[in-house]
Amino acid sequence: MYGLIGKMIALDGKRAELVAAMGESTADMPGCLSYVVAEDPDDANAIWITEVWVDKASHQASLKLESVQRAIARARPVIAGFGERFETRPLFGVGLGSP
Amino acid sequence: MYGLIGKMIALDGKRAELVAAMGESTADMPGCLSYVVAEDPDDANAIWITEVWVDKASHQASLKLESVQRAIARARPVIAGFGERFETRPLFGVGLGSP
Repeated sequence: MYGLIGKMIALDGKRAELVAAMGESTADMPGCLSYVVAEDPDDANAIWITEVWVDKASHQASLKLESVQRAIARARPVIAGFGERFETRPLFGVGLGSP
Repeated sequence: MYGLIGKMIALDGKRAELVAAMGESTADMPGCLSYVVAEDPDDANAIWITEVWVDKASHQASLKLESVQRAIARARPVIAGFGERFETRPLFGVGLGSP
């Protein structure tokens, strides 16, 4: 499996718009086992996205999906920047959906 | 919802033991929606644990479960330290199990 943990920073006051945009892309992503969008309780403009994919290729393929392209286009104008980003190699867990 | 992202560092060469210990605790945790144990591909001794709970209280209650106490006791001797730790406020996602 392939995992990502990443922080995105919205323009000041635009976090809800960024969250809404990211939510658009979560349905019907082949190979996606987990994709959680969370607010950062310590930074009013920041969100965390944690992802688990069957492999890195399925994550990369997802970036070309029309729904994801649409989400990226909607998110881009409200993104101020990116924070921490970690790749992981998930082994097992609770709450991993079927790909 | 309540989320945690955390990095744990095993003693040199003891990552597999730490992973095995953490795996013991993942079954039957009330309020747990997601709990993923992952290796850090860039650090042979590090693991990442990402968690989603229905609320902070259910996470705290889990620490008192016998199975979790057992896992902590088994993990403690092979833990060298802790890395990054972030609390999050999950909003929605793919792969959130039922509590």
